This record gives sequence, structure tokens and C-alpha cells, in this order.
Amino acid sequence: MNIYLNDLPFEKACSIFYEQIEKSGWGTPTESECISVDENATGRTLAETCWAKISSPHYHASAMDGFALAAESVKEASPSKPIRLSYGDSVVYVDTGDPIPDWADAVIPIEDVEPVGINGLPPENPRKPSMICVRASVAPWSHIRLMGEDMVATQLVLAKGQVLTAYDLGALAASGNSQIQVVRKPKVGIIPTGSELIQPSDQAGKGEIIEFNSIMLASQIIQWGGEANRHPIVRDDLPCLCEAVQKMANENDLVLLNAGSSAGAEDYSSQVIASLGTVLVHGIAIRPGHPVILGMVRRSVQNKTEPVREIPIVGVPGYPVSAALTGELVVQPLIARWLGRNPLEKEEIEAILTRKVTSPAGDDDYLRVIVGRVGGKMLAAPLPRGAGVISSLSKADGLLMIPAGIQGLEAGEPVRVNLYRSRIELERTIFMIGSHDMTLDLLAQALGNKKRRLVSSNVGSLGGMVALRRGEAHLAGSHLLDPETGEFNIRYLKDYLPGIRVKLINWAGRSQGLLLRKGNPKNISGIEDLTRKDLVFINRQRGSGTRVLLDYHLNKLGIDGISIRGYPQEEYTHLGVAVAVLSGRADCGLGVAAAATALDLEFLPLFTERYDLIIPEEYTESNLLSPLFELMNDKRFVQTVARMPGYDVSSMGKLVGEFG
Amino acid sequence: MNIYLNDLPFEKACSIFYEQIEKSGWGTPTESECISVDENATGRTLAETCWAKISSPHYHASAMDGFALAAESVKEASPSKPIRLSYGDSVVYVDTGDPIPDWADAVIPIEDVEPVGINGLPPENPRKPSMICVRASVAPWSHIRLMGEDMVATQLVLAKGQVLTAYDLGALAASGNSQIQVVRKPKVGIIPTGSELIQPSDQAGKGEIIEFNSIMLASQIIQWGGEANRHPIVRDDLPCLCEAVQKMANENDLVLLNAGSSAGAEDYSSQVIASLGTVLVHGIAIRPGHPVILGMVRRSVQNKTEPVREIPIVGVPGYPVSAALTGELVVQPLIARWLGRNPLEKEEIEAILTRKVTSPAGDDDYLRVIVGRVGGKMLAAPLPRGAGVISSLSKADGLLMIPAGIQGLEAGEPVRVNLYRSRIELERTIFMIGSHDMTLDLLAQALGNKKRRLVSSNVGSLGGMVALRRGEAHLAGSHLLDPETGEFNIRYLKDYLPGIRVKLINWAGRSQGLLLRKGNPKNISGIEDLTRKDLVFINRQRGSGTRVLLDYHLNKLGIDGISIRGYPQEEYTHLGVAVAVLSGRADCGLGVAAAATALDLEFLPLFTERYDLIIPEEYTESNLLSPLFELMNDKRFVQTVARMPGYDVSSMGKLVGEFG
Repeated sequence: MNIYLNDLPFEKACSIFYEQIEKSGWGTPTESECISVDENATGRTLAETCWAKISSPHYHASAMDGFALAAESVKEASPSKPIRLSYGDSVVYVDTGDPIPDWADAVIPIEDVEPVGINGLPPENPRKPSMICVRASVAPWSHIRLMGEDMVATQLVLAKGQVLTAYDLGALAASGNSQIQVVRKPKVGIIPTGSELIQPSDQAGKGEIIEFNSIMLASQIIQWGGEANRHPIVRDDLPCLCEAVQKMANENDLVLLNAGSSAGAEDYSSQVIASLGTVLVHGIAIRPGHPVILGMVRRSVQNKTEPVREIPIVGVPGYPVSAALTGELVVQPLIARWLGRNPLEKEEIEAILTRKVTSPAGDDDYLRVIVGRVGGKMLAAPLPRGAGVISSLSKADGLLMIPAGIQGLEAGEPVRVNLYRSRIELERTIFMIGSHDMTLDLLAQALGNKKRRLVSSNVGSLGGMVALRRGEAHLAGSHLLDPETGEFNIRYLKDYLPGIRVKLINWAGRSQGLLLRKGNPKNISGIEDLTRKDLVFINRQRGSGTRVLLDYHLNKLGIDGISIRGYPQEEYTHLGVAVAVLSGRADCGLGVAAAATALDLEFLPLFTERYDLIIPEEYTESNLLSPLFELMNDKRFVQTVARMPGYDVSSMGKLVGEFG
Repeated sequence: MNIYLNDLPFEKACSIFYEQIEKSGWGTPTESECISVDENATGRTLAETCWAKISSPHYHASAMDGFALAAESVKEASPSKPIRLSYGDSVVYVDTGDPIPDWADAVIPIEDVEPVGINGLPPENPRKPSMICVRASVAPWSHIRLMGEDMVATQLVLAKGQVLTAYDLGALAASGNSQIQVVRKPKVGIIPTGSELIQPSDQAGKGEIIEFNSIMLASQIIQWGGEANRHPIVRDDLPCLCEAVQKMANENDLVLLNAGSSAGAEDYSSQVIASLGTVLVHGIAIRPGHPVILGMVRRSVQNKTEPVREIPIVGVPGYPVSAALTGELVVQPLIARWLGRNPLEKEEIEAILTRKVTSPAGDDDYLRVIVGRVGGKMLAAPLPRGAGVISSLSKADGLLMIPAGIQGLEAGEPVRVNLYRSRIELERTIFMIGSHDMTLDLLAQALGNKKRRLVSSNVGSLGGMVALRRGEAHLAGSHLLDPETGEFNIRYLKDYLPGIRVKLINWAGRSQGLLLRKGNPKNISGIEDLTRKDLVFINRQRGSGTRVLLDYHLNKLGIDGISIRGYPQEEYTHLGVAVAVLSGRADCGLGVAAAATALDLEFLPLFTERYDLIIPEEYTESNLLSPLFELMNDKRFVQTVARMPGYDVSSMGKLVGEFG
């Protein structure tokens, strides 16, 4: 059992690792290869400084289509006293790029001279006249691209270490560098391990886990300039693991041994590494990702000219977010070191944290966040933190690190975020907050086609209003029943958004009811059954419209929540409730029809309600939100929403009222 | 002859082009292909929205290595009243990731229970005890990753149009999307034309031009998500050109016809396009790049299922900077349109222009600039503007556009620059200005190895001091002779940098003399020969130390510059002077020995001088410049400089004095 009492601080772990790497001579001297200067050289790293082999241009070249001549010969030319020069001896036609004859030192553009043919008539070919008539003098070296204008032979073109762009390739070719030495890409072997792992598939049984860490790691490695070699999945068996690691070590410059998701699997990893080399570090004080192993393994097959006998190996943790972060924090700098580049630094942006986060004091804690601008403020909204939640990395705009020693951050604190996306993309983000609805996925997809990115946080209807008040979202979704009037949302606006001008716009009417297992095996017929001792209920979180709806009806029936089994168990989305029912964790829960249909559950309709959008006035006319209004008026989109079960779109887009 | 009186504004040209593209049905409906979710999918564009096919996790999974049990069964457990459960019926060991049995609803981590073996002894295998002893209750669903925690089946994973990252691949695989539909890459055919063109080589004859535009365009296209197909060079011959264009149009989705550098070549391009389709636009009001041609060509071979009969063709101008800009401005948006992406937008930064630039009023004028921070100011220094100067694009940090209607910008004006590099890279830029010296290339190379980028502008020693005074450089190089004292630089510091604290540091002593053609055919023996009528001299610009040196000695000899042929012809660098002599443009010029050696010229040594670095005090201790000081104390580097002919490095790095 490995209990990570001995996690090392990240800097310390790296210094131990790099000291050993240094000793092993890994990556030194730089291995290079000779390649042609063509499009395949893009992104490669120069292993040697390139000097111009020829000048560019490598001769005095005409910069125009025109006539080359000696400037001296037309020194006296003027409109009233034109000078005639006969073609061939002292004047010759040149196209742009043609060399200038030795005796010439200027070009007159063809449109500035008068070509004359035989007998003074216009010539048949204006580029080959009998003579030309020049009516103005020309300064020496006019309209000539001087030899070396761009680059002079022997001058520095690009220094060693340059990562080649399209334009660098142009500069290299122009200066006669048709072959170049670039750093050989480091070969990175990736070994996924775990008896529970299966190849990506849509058919996975219980206990089978889809292996995709090796794909993510390979994709990262290629982006960072390495060559990725994926090994097939190896089961948790020491001899098999040793064989795979030895083989990959022999064939690669760096090995990533990706443990299965079980904690026990890391023991295998460390045993394998210890048996084939050395475990230098086991456990780094970072989260997610602390069970990282850093070590060295010996190559068993050696070429005599090969100076490296030991290569680094990284034991990559099994949870996907941990694996991905290990890639960024540990593997990327190794590849950069091999290539002689600076480790990648992401652009940083200052933002305001939207909610409080706690953090383990002993670890550098990496938080994935969504970043976007609301009003004048750049906001960072934390994403789910589980190391297994890969969607949080796919959605993330950036990463922020809470250093060891800090136990958390408060809502409203300024933070620095390392960005995954360009600042420009962030400006396209629409922050929606509040109540979860199944049709928001359709909206996100449709907005995606209109160059907007919808980011919705499910914090419940009331939470959405609170966020709007704080200026942390462009709009909120809400379906809060007013028990006194039977109306939706309006009373709450007055309480929660006093003095804030908002428009309340109808999104859809929707049907709420009980989500039940297929066939309703427990024979549930309504809210009043929830107190049955043989039933487990799954609830929604406080502040959600669905919870308000439930509590209203329980109250009407005189039922106390405490008498319902499972009442304290809260989910944040309709789908969360549906999954709880599907998986047997609960027998029923309150939710929308679409959630039941999505997971093939039974639906017992009970209530209809109105789901509205609350949009502060400053955004209703904004360019950012205009595609949202277009969609609510787009029949095709409205029909797409209507196809979801339990939705009434007849009033979509209608103004309910203006408030505040 | 095409005189571009009819250049269209860029927007207008695009609207004509896109109208025709729209009509042709190009790129619609989106052509997609099915690929596996693996590392090769990185950077591809989703052609269809992906929904989760399975939940992730797709079952309730243990989040720890431990024992699964019903929370209810240990509800009463406490340290003083432990509960014992026998293994198998109500307790079972689970590894992280294992499914939870149906009857269990919690996991207790293995380190929190006491496994008991036969007869109450510790069990042989702690994971398979006879019973376990639990001393604390556990909340239901503790240490369990609930089904759907990451993604719930049927929910949106990634919307159509998403450009896939490593983490997106993870999210797709995790949600059971092992195969995905991505947009087929547009095939872009590139045809280099021109009888003068040759393949990249270090052996180019007079009039032969190295063809590398096709490489740059191909590299751009690949980066932007297209597939590039390069055709061999086609000579300027109408039937050959037509054949090549027709073939490439049949096999590709877009054709780039790259004219040779001669203006006449564009006539061929437009004739070819007209004969195989339609020329829509000939000439756009942008610089560089105005002779762009936009048109459509018909495919001659058609598959019946193929809806597109006409595809767009772009006549790309021949000069490399024009070609590259045509790529960015015209080709990139076309590829983005095919892929259903937003056209690429570069990050923008605000900077201050370091010197005045003029601009043709009728055109959108694109200026390449170096960007870096000096003191508190972000500066944009214009690079050479010639359309043939590809090194200017390779060096550029960004592009700034001076819109049609504006005739130029003043030094000190704020400008917005579209960046080619990340802001982080810009912070590594050392701005050096002043006198040109051949050893600066060696310095640039060495600083490159120390994560610094040296950008040096050759404006002469005096110009360098003026720039320092304006706060536009981190250091300046200078070798200004004081005719009265024979000392270097010090008197000028007092005149040009009054009140500015600077350190004057010795870089090298160097030998100046006359650069002569090999064998000294004109038998030149010194400065006094320069007035000979059979000689042409090539001068350095006013304000350069070399010019001051020359004028000082001419003055001593009583020679007036006007009596020297070529005296008004100015070059900005020693290499520029050397090239002028090598190419026969001049017979001799004053310069350093290294320039003569570089181009295999004869050198007649005349004077020795001191080349110093002037560094304002605020930078002498800066982290940015510390590698420079390291190098001046690095014997290996100093020796590298010493190997250049004519340099004396014995005092390199020594402080001459502090001034101001």
C-alpha cells in the first residue's frame, strides 16, 4: 500500500530527476538529422546555426519590368531634350528579377520610356524596340534590387534552437540552405497498463475501463515536438510489465508507464522501474497527479556508438486528469530539454474567481477553470475537480495553481490563469448560470455554429440570480415557482435582483414529474408515495427550481422531507437524478421528461412549469448575445427544441416583462 | 502590361470572390470522413456534434482501494464499539475503478479498516481477510465515483466545429465515441511558375531564382488545417500552365497559382485562369501583395456524385513577402471556411512605433515589425519593407496594418500589432541599436542559447545614442572617434546622452581599412587614392562611426568628399559595403576586416578603433541582460569572437567608465 506521506515538493522532485538525467548524458550531445528545407520542416528545431550560403538576391536584379542602362548615359535627359539610345549596346530589356548587365547601373520602368521601332514607328514588340527614347534622368541603382538586399552571404540567418516557421523556411531556402540539421525528435514510448483497461469502444462492461490516457499523452507529445509510440495495453502482471518497459526503453528516448486507475497498480509501476533501473521519486506534492514516479531505466540493447545507457521513465498516474497534468508538468519540459527549447509557457491572464475553493495545504493544487468576460470583468469559474473528470480538461480555458501552503481561495479573489485558449476565443464566451435544462445542450450546439461558446453552470435557479447580481453571468435560467401566486420567477427577481434592470424572456414550458425505473417496478404513483419505507428518493440541491417545486408540493401534502429516504442526497442536474435512478442508487426522483427519455426511464408527469431566461439589460442588445435572440426566432431551432419530450416552445423568445 | 489602376479594396474583392464561391456550392455540404479517436485526430475539426454514447464512469466505481459494503451495516460503528463483518457476503475488496456490488453503497479505504484473518490473526492477504473490523460509520456513497460523474450518456460532449485537443480526444473516448466524423481537409494545390525558377540549392546562377514560395505556402496550409500538394515548377508557357492548372484543379479543392517574380508572369496567370474559368478580381489594394488574382476554374473530370464543378483559384504574386501575405489574408480564411472554423485571429498588442513610416495612401499597407519591451514601453520597430525581403517576415514578431487613406505614421505613435509570437517570447527580446558589427551575429547566436533574442538595428553609432535617449533600446554599440582627443565615444555620450546614467563597456578593438576586389586590380594604396577618376567608392551612412572615421581622415588630408566618385552612395552595414565591392558596384569602401574575409575580398588595414557597448544603468543589473555579461566573461565565447579577423578582445567586458 502506498500512502503518500513522502510526497516531495515539485521543485525538489525535479531537481533530483534532472540531476540524474544530467549524469546519464541524456540528450547530450544533441542528436541531429539532415532534412530538406520543405514544408515537413515546419516546427522542427534547428540543431545548428544557419548562415547565408549565398546572398539574396545573389546578383543585382531588376526590381521592375523595364530597360537596363547606365545612369550616366541619360544624365542630361529631360522632357524637352530626350535622349535616344539604340537597343542592344547600351540598353537592354529586363523582366523583374532579371540580372542587370555589368555595364548597366539603373533600370527605367517600361511605362516611363518610349520604345521606338524601325523608321520611328512604334515597335512590334515593345520589349524589343530598335531604340528607346528617355525623357528624364535616373539616379544610379534605381529600380534595382541590390545583391544582398535581403541577406548577405555569410551572415546569420537563424540561430540554433529556432523552431522553424513557414517564413523561416523561406529565409533558409533564399539563402541557399536547402538542407538543414534539425534536432531529432525524441521518441516517447507510452505503455498503458491495467487488467481492467479496454480499447475505446461504445460497448464497455462493468469493471471495464476505456483506455484513453495513452491517446492524450501521444497527442500532447506530438504537439510538443516529440514522436509518440504507443504500446498495446499491458495487464497487471510483473513479468509482462517488465518485458514491455524494457522493450520500450530500448526503442525510445523516454518511457511513460501509465498505471491503471487502481492505487495498487502504482506499486507494480514502482516495482518494474526498480527492477530495471532506479525509482528516484515516488509521489510529488501536486494535485491532481501526486502519485507520479520519476526514475531511470537501463537500456539492454546498446549500440556501441550510443552514449546513453540510462533513459528517464515517468510513472504516470492512472486518473486521466492526473495523467494529463503529469504530461504538462513533467513530460513537456523533458521534451523541450531534449529539443533545446525553452519549456512551454502558457499565456497568463488575470481573472476573478467566481466561487470559493478549498485546497489541500500540502500540495500545489491545479484547478481547471472556464474564463470569460462578463461586463468589464474577466472571470474564472472553477470546473469539477475530480481527477477522473476528463470533460473538465476538455472544457477548461485554463489552469490556475494554488500553491502548497495556501488552503484555498475566496470568491472574488484575483487569480492568474494559464490559458489553454487564445484571449480572442475567450471573448466569445457566453456565461449562462442557474437552472439546469436538457435543451441547453441544443442551445450550446447551435450557438457553436454562430461563433459563440455557451458555458453553463448548474447552480440552481436561485444560485443563478445571485450570480447575476454579482455580475458573474450574461444570463440565467430559472423556473422558480411562487407558491402564493402560482407564477414563476417574477417575485424572486424583485427579491434577488433589486435595482438591476433585466428582461425576463420565455424559454420553454416543460413538464416535471417522477423519473422511475423502466416498468415502474416499485409501483410509484405520485409524490405521496415518497415516504414509503421501501423507496429511496434522489433529491435536487437546495435553491434549484425543482427542489422548490418538490418542497411546495410536499408542504401542500403535509409531508416532512425528513420522512423521505434519500431526501438529503442531492444531485445538481436532471441527468444526475436520472442516472441515480438508472443505476439503482435511487428508486425515483423529480425531473424533466427529457432526462427520463435520454436514459430510457419511465416518466410520471406531475406538473408543468415555465423556464425563463433572465437577461440584464446591458446584454440584451449586445453583439455577444445577438445569436441567442436569432435562435429563439429561428423556426428550425425552435423545432429542434420542441422535439425534446415534455417541452412547450409556443412562447419561446416572448418577453415576459422588464424588471428592476 | 498590367498597371494596377483598378486595385479593389480588400473587402470589396473578397465579397466578389465569396459571392461566386457561395454560388458554386464550394465546401457545402461539409465533406466529412470517419476516423478513429487517436492522436492523429488532434487538430481535426468535428463535422458532427458528439453526444455521450455511454456514461463516464458507466457504473458506480470505487474511488479508492478498499472494502465495499452497505453504509447501513456500519451505521453504529465507533472506536469503542467496532463492528465486524465477515468477508464475502456483506463486504468485498475493491480496487480503485472496480464496480461496486449492487448490495453495497459505500467504500471504506483499506487503511481505515482492520482486516482480520483466521483466528483473529492478521490475514495473509490484507485484501482477502476473513472479516473486517470497522471502527467508524461511513456516509452512503462515500469513496464512490458515481456513474455519470464525468459525463452522462446522451449529453453533449463536443459541438460540431470543435478543433480537437488532446483532452477533447480523452472526453470523446471516455464517452464511448471511438469513431468520429471530422471535416475532410481541403486539398490545396500549389503551382510555382516562372522560367527563372530553380529548386532550393546553394548553387544558383545569375538570373536563376530559388523557388521557395511553394514551400512557405504549403507550410502555412498545413498549419491552418489543409492538405498541401505542391506541383513541380512550371515554365512561363501558356499550354504548360493551362495543363498544370487543369490537373491541379481536378485533384484539389483550391488552387494557388504562384506567378514568377516578373510582372509579365501575372499576365500569364490571368490568361490561364480566364481560359479555364473566370478572373473575378485582378489587383487588390493591399501592400505588399496587390497583384493578387481571384478567380474560379472549372474541373474537367467530374464524378457524378460530386456537386462542385468550379473551385476557387488564387493568383499569388511572385515576391515572397507578397506571397506569404496573400496566404494569410486570402488563403487562410478560405481554409477556415471549408473547415467551418472562424478565420484565425492573431493576438493583438499595443505598442509604440520607433520610427516614422510612410505609406501609399490608396492601399492597406502591411508593415512587419519587431516587438519588445524596453523599460516600461512596448515598442514596435519596423523591419525592411521590400516585398523581396523574406528575412523580414522570418524575423517579424508581428504585422501592423496602415489602412488605405492614411499616408503614414509618426515615430512615437501608438499602434496595434497582430502578433506572430506569444507575448512571453517578446519579453525575452534584447533591443540593441547603433553601429553595425560583424560579431553581433555571434552574440545573437550565443544569446539564443541563453534564452534571449538579440534584435539589432543598424542605424549607426550616433543613431544608437539618439535611440537610447528616447528609451528605445537596452543598449547601443558605438565606435565614434573624437577628432580632438583620439578617444572614442566618451565626448559623444556627454553631448547626446546628457543626464542619462550609462556604463560604457569595451566590446572589442577592431581594424578598419579599405575593402578591395581580390588582387587589388585597381592598385589602391590608401585613402588618398579615393579621388582617382577611375575609382568608384561606396560610403557608409552619415552618423555611422565608420563615416566619422573616414571624414576625419579625409579632412586631415584636405580631401573634399564631393571629389570622390560614389561618396553619396550610402550603405548601412559593413557587409553592405563588401557586397557593393564584390558585385562591382564599387571599387572600394571603408569597413572591418571580417567583412572582407566573409566575402573573400582583399583588405587594406588602415586604422584601429574601439567598439564599445553603451548600457543605461537600469539595464546593467537586469535579468534580461545578465546573459550578455556572462558571455563577455566566458572564455569560449571571447575566443569565438577573437577568431573573427581584425578583432582584439583583450579588454572585452572591461568598464571604460560610468557617465551621465
